[in-house]
Amino acid sequence: MSKPYVVGIDIGGTNTVFGVVDARGTIIDSGSIKTAKHDKVEDYVNELYGQLFALLEKNDVVDKIAGIGVGAPNGNYFNGTIEFAPNLPWRGVLPLAQMLTDRFGIPVALTNDANAAAIGEMTYGAARGLKDFIMITLGTGVGSGIVVNGQLVYGHDGFAGELGHVIVKPGNGRLCGCGRSGCLEAYTSATGVARTAREFLEMRKDNSLLRQIPIQDITSKDVYDAAMAGDQLAKDIFDYTGDILGEAFANFTAFSSPEAIILFGGLAKAGDLIMKPIQESMERNMLNIYKNKVKLLFSELKESDAAVLGASALGWEVKRK
Amino acid sequence: MSKPYVVGIDIGGTNTVFGVVDARGTIIDSGSIKTAKHDKVEDYVNELYGQLFALLEKNDVVDKIAGIGVGAPNGNYFNGTIEFAPNLPWRGVLPLAQMLTDRFGIPVALTNDANAAAIGEMTYGAARGLKDFIMITLGTGVGSGIVVNGQLVYGHDGFAGELGHVIVKPGNGRLCGCGRSGCLEAYTSATGVARTAREFLEMRKDNSLLRQIPIQDITSKDVYDAAMAGDQLAKDIFDYTGDILGEAFANFTAFSSPEAIILFGGLAKAGDLIMKPIQESMERNMLNIYKNKVKLLFSELKESDAAVLGASALGWEVKRK
Repeated sequence: MSKPYVVGIDIGGTNTVFGVVDARGTIIDSGSIKTAKHDKVEDYVNELYGQLFALLEKNDVVDKIAGIGVGAPNGNYFNGTIEFAPNLPWRGVLPLAQMLTDRFGIPVALTNDANAAAIGEMTYGAARGLKDFIMITLGTGVGSGIVVNGQLVYGHDGFAGELGHVIVKPGNGRLCGCGRSGCLEAYTSATGVARTAREFLEMRKDNSLLRQIPIQDITSKDVYDAAMAGDQLAKDIFDYTGDILGEAFANFTAFSSPEAIILFGGLAKAGDLIMKPIQESMERNMLNIYKNKVKLLFSELKESDAAVLGASALGWEVKRK
Repeated sequence: MSKPYVVGIDIGGTNTVFGVVDARGTIIDSGSIKTAKHDKVEDYVNELYGQLFALLEKNDVVDKIAGIGVGAPNGNYFNGTIEFAPNLPWRGVLPLAQMLTDRFGIPVALTNDANAAAIGEMTYGAARGLKDFIMITLGTGVGSGIVVNGQLVYGHDGFAGELGHVIVKPGNGRLCGCGRSGCLEAYTSATGVARTAREFLEMRKDNSLLRQIPIQDITSKDVYDAAMAGDQLAKDIFDYTGDILGEAFANFTAFSSPEAIILFGGLAKAGDLIMKPIQESMERNMLNIYKNKVKLLFSELKESDAAVLGASALGWEVKRK
């Protein structure tokens, strides 16, 4: 009999969250540990093993796990490694999938967090039944998972789908955390939106609720709150951000002609404030043959669950490797 | 026994070329008709059928054709239709694959010319053994065929891979034939290169061999000839063109992380004149994780044969649909 559960592990810079998931996408039980507590990755894996094994025992599913899926920053699906992740405490190339397989005796697959989100959406969420879509995660950074013909695009080295680092302002763009200039992420991540707020507040003279906040402390959440309260400058920040995203989405469409582009993450919660300008800009910039064909959707997964669900979905696939 | 030959048909605005091809990619025999001779597509198909059938009889292969592949502008793989092709004499949506199947009683697959080139390169050329690559055709226009995990990317509607119409100069770019502004094609097609030559000649004051040619008559071939003769302005035109291509290729890499980008068409014949600036610009603009990984290659197919070979390669696949 095939085993009825999978485990999803989401490794973030602060917390590592794990959960046991059934075929319908219900998280049966979950737990978490602090990622950064251990200087050595071996000690981290030891604690993760101990905590997760206890969770499996408690739920009486030790022998019922089909596979373990891991979502991690800079995760490489082909090697099962985490490679030079700037936000994790361990350096170099970490063979995490192998380390976990050795401990659990269960097959482990690993990919980056945005790819995991795309697989989760395809398995349990807004992309069920879609064979061609692009997942865009709008958080501290901007990530992406691209699905073509029902398969995640990994590229020849496992690193495909870094659409947050497509250069959208060639020649004269903002510095990006990656060391280059003009990346989509530098404008449309949560920090990008906060940077836009600071630029607008410095360049413009009109009143704004945002002027009540010390300028260096402004977050994308503040911009959202101000826009919801009717603040024009804050609304203009969303228009500016949506305009850049829509232009980028029109270009992405020329690549893979997706049926839908699905937004996930903090900024996506701004709803129509961000969706309307994206939609308008996307259609305005779209090549004729693609016009009015690409659906713009929100993720249907609860944000607190999505990372674990996405990683877990990979657990169903791992045997097929 | 499986049938040992396929037929490739390349429908261009001026000529339609067809050939019988064996499994090694040798064109056994070929012929052509004028595309624009017939106002009605039915008359065109009649003549194509007559000429091609005669060719099959002459070579005694009427019963030995595994499939027919067609490359056509605006060809849609999913429907087997040609849809609103601006350079063909017939309007609307033409069910060409069905029309040819009805006449020949042989399965027919159809796609656009750049996709056909990519399949041809994968079957017979520089992309043999590659599972992830991007084919860029630099001709009158700029086309592309994208292969991910060994499969051509068609997208949900069959129209994926229009990388010539990615907007590379947002906001202030050159008008493009598609009606928008700033497309890659407007800069890096043969006509784009000629436009750059006219801009450079008007804006700069230095001597150039190109000043001996009436400015409206300058072609990309003239720019090539001048650059080969050591003309600095002409070389600068190639640098400018290569710079834009390299920047675009770095962005394409963030999408599908290909093992190689393969150039085909007139401009690709400029060799190092265009390859060196592309390579430099591509690596300069590349996200760190992709640096020094993507090979830049020329097509290995003879240009006169490539269109028929590419289309014919589709003939091997058609049974599998």
